Amino acid sequence: MQLGFVSAILYDLSLEEVLAFAADEGFKCVELMCWPPGKSDRRYAGVTHLDVTHFGEEQAAHVRELVRIHGVKVASLGYYPNPLDPDPDHRKQVCDHLKAVVRAAPMIGVDVVNTFVGRDWKRGVADNFAMARDVWPAILRVAEEAGVKVGIEHCPMLFSDDEWPGGKNLPVSPATWRELFATFPDAPLGLNFDPSHLVWQFIDCARAIREFGDKIVHVHAKDERVDPERLYEVGALGLGWHKPRLPGLGDVKWGEFFAALTEAGYRGPVCIEVEDRAYEGSLADRQRALRQSRKFLEPYFG
Amino acid sequence: MQLGFVSAILYDLSLEEVLAFAADEGFKCVELMCWPPGKSDRRYAGVTHLDVTHFGEEQAAHVRELVRIHGVKVASLGYYPNPLDPDPDHRKQVCDHLKAVVRAAPMIGVDVVNTFVGRDWKRGVADNFAMARDVWPAILRVAEEAGVKVGIEHCPMLFSDDEWPGGKNLPVSPATWRELFATFPDAPLGLNFDPSHLVWQFIDCARAIREFGDKIVHVHAKDERVDPERLYEVGALGLGWHKPRLPGLGDVKWGEFFAALTEAGYRGPVCIEVEDRAYEGSLADRQRALRQSRKFLEPYFG
Amino acid sequence: MQLGFVSAILYDLSLEEVLAFAADEGFKCVELMCWPPGKSDRRYAGVTHLDVTHFGEEQAAHVRELVRIHGVKVASLGYYPNPLDPDPDHRKQVCDHLKAVVRAAPMIGVDVVNTFVGRDWKRGVADNFAMARDVWPAILRVAEEAGVKVGIEHCPMLFSDDEWPGGKNLPVSPATWRELFATFPDAPLGLNFDPSHLVWQFIDCARAIREFGDKIVHVHAKDERVDPERLYEVGALGLGWHKPRLPGLGDVKWGEFFAALTEAGYRGPVCIEVEDRAYEGSLADRQRALRQSRKFLEPYFG
Amino acid sequence: MQLGFVSAILYDLSLEEVLAFAADEGFKCVELMCWPPGKSDRRYAGVTHLDVTHFGEEQAAHVRELVRIHGVKVASLGYYPNPLDPDPDHRKQVCDHLKAVVRAAPMIGVDVVNTFVGRDWKRGVADNFAMARDVWPAILRVAEEAGVKVGIEHCPMLFSDDEWPGGKNLPVSPATWRELFATFPDAPLGLNFDPSHLVWQFIDCARAIREFGDKIVHVHAKDERVDPERLYEVGALGLGWHKPRLPGLGDVKWGEFFAALTEAGYRGPVCIEVEDRAYEGSLADRQRALRQSRKFLEPYFG
Amino acid sequence: MQLGFVSAILYDLSLEEVLAFAADEGFKCVELMCWPPGKSDRRYAGVTHLDVTHFGEEQAAHVRELVRIHGVKVASLGYYPNPLDPDPDHRKQVCDHLKAVVRAAPMIGVDVVNTFVGRDWKRGVADNFAMARDVWPAILRVAEEAGVKVGIEHCPMLFSDDEWPGGKNLPVSPATWRELFATFPDAPLGLNFDPSHLVWQFIDCARAIREFGDKIVHVHAKDERVDPERLYEVGALGLGWHKPRLPGLGDVKWGEFFAALTEAGYRGPVCIEVEDRAYEGSLADRQRALRQSRKFLEPYFG
Amino acid sequence: MQLGFVSAILYDLSLEEVLAFAADEGFKCVELMCWPPGKSDRRYAGVTHLDVTHFGEEQAAHVRELVRIHGVKVASLGYYPNPLDPDPDHRKQVCDHLKAVVRAAPMIGVDVVNTFVGRDWKRGVADNFAMARDVWPAILRVAEEAGVKVGIEHCPMLFSDDEWPGGKNLPVSPATWRELFATFPDAPLGLNFDPSHLVWQFIDCARAIREFGDKIVHVHAKDERVDPERLYEVGALGLGWHKPRLPGLGDVKWGEFFAALTEAGYRGPVCIEVEDRAYEGSLADRQRALRQSRKFLEPYFG
Repeated sequence: MQLGFVSAILYDLSLEEVLAFAADEGFKCVELMCWPPGKSDRRYAGVTHLDVTHFGEEQAAHVRELVRIHGVKVASLGYYPNPLDPDPDHRKQVCDHLKAVVRAAPMIGVDVVNTFVGRDWKRGVADNFAMARDVWPAILRVAEEAGVKVGIEHCPMLFSDDEWPGGKNLPVSPATWRELFATFPDAPLGLNFDPSHLVWQFIDCARAIREFGDKIVHVHAKDERVDPERLYEVGALGLGWHKPRLPGLGDVKWGEFFAALTEAGYRGPVCIEVEDRAYEGSLADRQRALRQSRKFLEPYFG
Repeated sequence: MQLGFVSAILYDLSLEEVLAFAADEGFKCVELMCWPPGKSDRRYAGVTHLDVTHFGEEQAAHVRELVRIHGVKVASLGYYPNPLDPDPDHRKQVCDHLKAVVRAAPMIGVDVVNTFVGRDWKRGVADNFAMARDVWPAILRVAEEAGVKVGIEHCPMLFSDDEWPGGKNLPVSPATWRELFATFPDAPLGLNFDPSHLVWQFIDCARAIREFGDKIVHVHAKDERVDPERLYEVGALGLGWHKPRLPGLGDVKWGEFFAALTEAGYRGPVCIEVEDRAYEGSLADRQRALRQSRKFLEPYFG
Repeated sequence: MQLGFVSAILYDLSLEEVLAFAADEGFKCVELMCWPPGKSDRRYAGVTHLDVTHFGEEQAAHVRELVRIHGVKVASLGYYPNPLDPDPDHRKQVCDHLKAVVRAAPMIGVDVVNTFVGRDWKRGVADNFAMARDVWPAILRVAEEAGVKVGIEHCPMLFSDDEWPGGKNLPVSPATWRELFATFPDAPLGLNFDPSHLVWQFIDCARAIREFGDKIVHVHAKDERVDPERLYEVGALGLGWHKPRLPGLGDVKWGEFFAALTEAGYRGPVCIEVEDRAYEGSLADRQRALRQSRKFLEPYFG
Repeated sequence: MQLGFVSAILYDLSLEEVLAFAADEGFKCVELMCWPPGKSDRRYAGVTHLDVTHFGEEQAAHVRELVRIHGVKVASLGYYPNPLDPDPDHRKQVCDHLKAVVRAAPMIGVDVVNTFVGRDWKRGVADNFAMARDVWPAILRVAEEAGVKVGIEHCPMLFSDDEWPGGKNLPVSPATWRELFATFPDAPLGLNFDPSHLVWQFIDCARAIREFGDKIVHVHAKDERVDPERLYEVGALGLGWHKPRLPGLGDVKWGEFFAALTEAGYRGPVCIEVEDRAYEGSLADRQRALRQSRKFLEPYFG
Repeated sequence: MQLGFVSAILYDLSLEEVLAFAADEGFKCVELMCWPPGKSDRRYAGVTHLDVTHFGEEQAAHVRELVRIHGVKVASLGYYPNPLDPDPDHRKQVCDHLKAVVRAAPMIGVDVVNTFVGRDWKRGVADNFAMARDVWPAILRVAEEAGVKVGIEHCPMLFSDDEWPGGKNLPVSPATWRELFATFPDAPLGLNFDPSHLVWQFIDCARAIREFGDKIVHVHAKDERVDPERLYEVGALGLGWHKPRLPGLGDVKWGEFFAALTEAGYRGPVCIEVEDRAYEGSLADRQRALRQSRKFLEPYFG
Repeated sequence: MQLGFVSAILYDLSLEEVLAFAADEGFKCVELMCWPPGKSDRRYAGVTHLDVTHFGEEQAAHVRELVRIHGVKVASLGYYPNPLDPDPDHRKQVCDHLKAVVRAAPMIGVDVVNTFVGRDWKRGVADNFAMARDVWPAILRVAEEAGVKVGIEHCPMLFSDDEWPGGKNLPVSPATWRELFATFPDAPLGLNFDPSHLVWQFIDCARAIREFGDKIVHVHAKDERVDPERLYEVGALGLGWHKPRLPGLGDVKWGEFFAALTEAGYRGPVCIEVEDRAYEGSLADRQRALRQSRKFLEPYFG
């Protein structure tokens, strides 16, 4: 396993600066954000460390050179839109860009692209699986051709009122993962496993790894803390009673997590994902967040 | 406190048979179901032990006589529709009937009517509070005139796909209770407190009683068991991972519950509500369910 | 479900006295001990409330008459020897008597006979399954003919030095139960389920009932308490760190137990089995033990 | 074991009424309060169901006759003053009266008198043991002569500001019990064991019974509930964060308690002691409290 | 946040040696002990790394120069006497010295002075607050003028017989903190927060930080371990059942602690306080203790 | 305490390479494996980093020189056969070699030799103690003469079918340790304490250290994880439901462990023992395992 980070939190640094920071701080790899250039529509989105909209051999060579110089691996490319958005125009735009990200990956020697399946948040699970059967085969075909695994992050994407009620991502639990893999049985599809999403769904993380270990193609290291005061107020059906935190500041049992992961034979990247409001005051704060997270997780890496 | 039961589970017995059963089995009181005669549209609904559609002094006198004969108190009247249904016709029909139930109560010496606030299950909390401000003043005025307290059951009513995503009842947690009482500050409104609804929302029941003890006008004794296997499958955002059970067969901490209730000074009825699939095979099974529940709860009654 | 008891603990009463006691104390049924007359070779064994060694229609008629008079059902017959004893003579004797018990059952209207599979306690699981394949088909054929289910108690029978190391009973856990039922797929074989045996094997009782619910043909209600002081001394590999106790005085979670049992659809007898050293001073003590156990369990019966 | 109650809570009933109530409600025994007639100086004190100040054979015969008529045993006599009060006059008065209670006991066939060791609440443990060595030999001599066991209740008597800091009773924990018994090695001294006092001292109750089982001469059944809100406010060094409650409404683990008690061979009286503010509104409330407590504890009695 | 230590444990090193050690070992800051020179009257007291008794500009300049050379910040000055000692002479002496410490602080660029409120350990909370209202205004006025925050350590100071019964410090819990801040509403007064003091008072540490986060002006990192064996012996009212330990060797939940602290926006010093008997054999042991503590806490610092 | 490792896991490195690796990675010491050259008969056995079969002053001088060069201490010698093997030839061979190891130790300045007591796994505890009284005095005499302490590892050695039923080592719990030390009261015998063996015997580790702290002469740092899925399947009497893991990946509570160890005054070596199947793919994996373990444990070392 290689300890790295998700580049989104360093949105104000250039690709070169991101790689330099990673190298200086002893990170082995990074997941590079590949949103299309332009304005973000939600927190932690809209970051473009790799612009795949016009990505030819020249651009690829430049990236490969930067990577060589800094000696930090690109663990994966990341782009987390809603491919099942109810608006067909938005959906097309998103899927086209996702394909571009997938096509760019092998050009710089990367074989995992992380994203969401997406969801029409106002419709139920069955309806969304129907839509997924329409939308996703084309993407997966491109991935197949590119020799790329698509790593599905299983975040429910249900944190705010505009994501209510269903959240903007479909496969969030063992039952929906199982259905996803049954729907696309031979596709280059895996999980971008993140324990923080299971904490507040009360899903047994170690058991999930025991069952789906061979489907894990990428790992996000993020923690999540239940706020008992707010949970009392609104109950599990409400919003705001759990918060993303740096590893070690939440309720993930990291020893159990890495025990299950190593027993399942996982040997890929583990990218720290920082979304902790207490560490977002400045670039220095966000860099400190990555540094602290690395210190906390190092004891699980040889 | 007086131990009784909710009459819905004995839907195939007449009012007289219900009262006779209660008396024979040592129950002190019953909550009588007052749905309008006709077909039920969901499980446990549609039961009419008291038909208030044509309820004059003659009918009332008959009921009072039955009560006198069997020596069992009518703890409350119950009618649990959706007063905030998105269909205005349905809404009107439901509110009219609810008012009829409220008006009937004092005629037989009853001062609590239990119901739901209701909810448009496809809309958010704020929208529904707006609708509640339209719909509820008229009902509460009738209650005021009748000298009746309206006991709001705080069940989320979110068990099946057709209740998804928001459930069919608005005030389900301390935050929404607080907003409800702030919205109608002097209204004859209270809680029909049922610990089973808090188990699966992970809301601290004893603390809720400490805070809202003086708002409790009626109590339902029902238990709820979390099914760990199904919770693993679908997570807390899914459906079906918790089940109503008889008192003692679920996760309610009854000692803590009655400790809080008595400390809060509650002295009213505690009506067993049976909705346990394992005890619904026959009338005998359902009667056995009530008998067993009574035995389990007796040690908390003097 | 019908609450009864295992007759062994009233070894000094006659069958008639046992039935009279059961009736007086409100028990609905009894499991009658059917050891061959003679000396017992271990505690709680060797009791003969029904002597099946010479059991013809006359004896059966007498028993049926006693049952009719006292209005207490015979839930099952019980005989708990070691059918896989390493001594072939002993084995034969035991199997012959077991067949006699099975044949007697239908003559008095009983369709469950409880026993052990047995085990050569000095040999491993595989060897013992091999022996079981030799020994058991004949017994099961007799059961088939008699229309009787054989209820296997899953006690490890490993309490004392002379039962060390393997204990005197083979199928003690989900893995061995599964193998047992796979070995004799169509045989009239089920479990005589007793939660006390799972406490000290640290096997999740509710989960076991979820998986094997349809195999349960009889239930023993016994509790088991872990002695933390002795567990510290000898560890889980030692002996003596857990003790059979009356229901309510041990570590069985009875609410969870009956929740699982009823959800699994079990509707048969639940026989209290008393093996609590603190209640064995005299016949009065042992009767008190049964009375107390009944009071403790009543709240789970309708 | 015999289930009874402490008579203090029925302070407004006469001895005869107390015995009649006990008989009617199925209690087997009572502990009779023997305060000197006059005003009480604290809650639950000052009750005189047996006036031993002028107690001759005539009075004794009258009591024996009442006991015979109602068929309820006098489990013990109780008088709970502070024999180590710093005021020597008060001390003398209290010790004299205690001796009178001890002398009265055998006259009505009672062999246990319950009381406190007492404590100068402003002085440390060592000073108080020194005073105990002065004060107690005389009392114990009288007990010896009378053939009476003195049952020491181990309540810290530290609930209110005027009992702060040390409380008004010395032997409250295993260490102080051990020292007490070592101080008076052959004296007729035992424990009046009450689990509620251990809850808030965080002392393992079952272990205490394992160690001191043979010293228990009487048992009080009272529960105690920790109030988490108040504990947060004042911490364990503060007052008011735990409250006496009826059995079943607090944090005592009753199954574990009776498991330990029976394993230790205890066979004496178990007297319910009611000091629950939620059940003190009226005589009816207090009688209800006893009735409810009895129902809750019955499942542990054969 | 800056990780440092309390200098008391290095009592045998000079100020310069303390700063050099801190710099060598990577500590960012130190809290300097400022007891008046002379003999200590209790463990961990009486250390003088900064002698404020004759502290002019010359001395200050020397200290500032040392600080500049070693590049280690002085986080705060510390002096922990009993300003509410019952002896008025001692009280005056202590308060005068405390004022001297406060006045010295700004001369070396320090704006926090840590101390105790103190307590007459033989009197109750109300009496002590009365005395605090007499004694403290003068101190706070000096702090106001000096631009210094007084950080109150909330240790109960109740570890040994000579501190019994009340301990030598008044504000030990949320209730007393609230009263303290209400008593001196606009004073430059805050908390020197130390989680170890809450462990054995059973006060929820994270909740305390949520409520009092904006009052925290300094943090001590010390752990505390409950000794279950001794707690059984003497109960929570006794002494000696909990022990100060290095961070990580006790019962403080550090992840939860730093999660709450960062969420509350705390950004100041976190000084390790070593009072662990297992690490006090020699200077090398005590230095090892600081080194080990730093390694344990580093993963919570960026 | 000095953090080191057990050399067995680096079986394919020479002694010099082992010491070089230790030095490079910052380990302070190693336990050197001293099996007789030849084939191993079980996993993790049969490693010979020090061949004591022909060990004269020349060999010793060479080892001392290597140790000097690399600056890594030899914490102990290790040889873990079955000295109570039922085969007398094997037994003799093993005991002879063990004596050779003991004699070699002082020649390279080592005073602890770790091993097993052994056990005839088919016989009970009493029989094996009898055999131990025959076999062990001779070994202990040699140790006495050599000035060497024998550190007994308390692993039950019961992981596979060929070790069933009793395991291949006798003293596995407080009761058997106590008997061992009573059997050889003045012998140079101590414990090679390893917390992983207590996890799955459910023995309280901290309490064991409190009781046997002064008997600990060496420590192994290994973790053990209970596999809940497999425990459900086979129960505590089965095999395979717990697995050795790297420190931090199992159920050992390391903070509690080191708290107890330091409080007991232990100051010797703590050698990481790697037996984690997830880290055995290659030499690099096994080295990574040691590196990771060191990082995890460092925060407990000063």
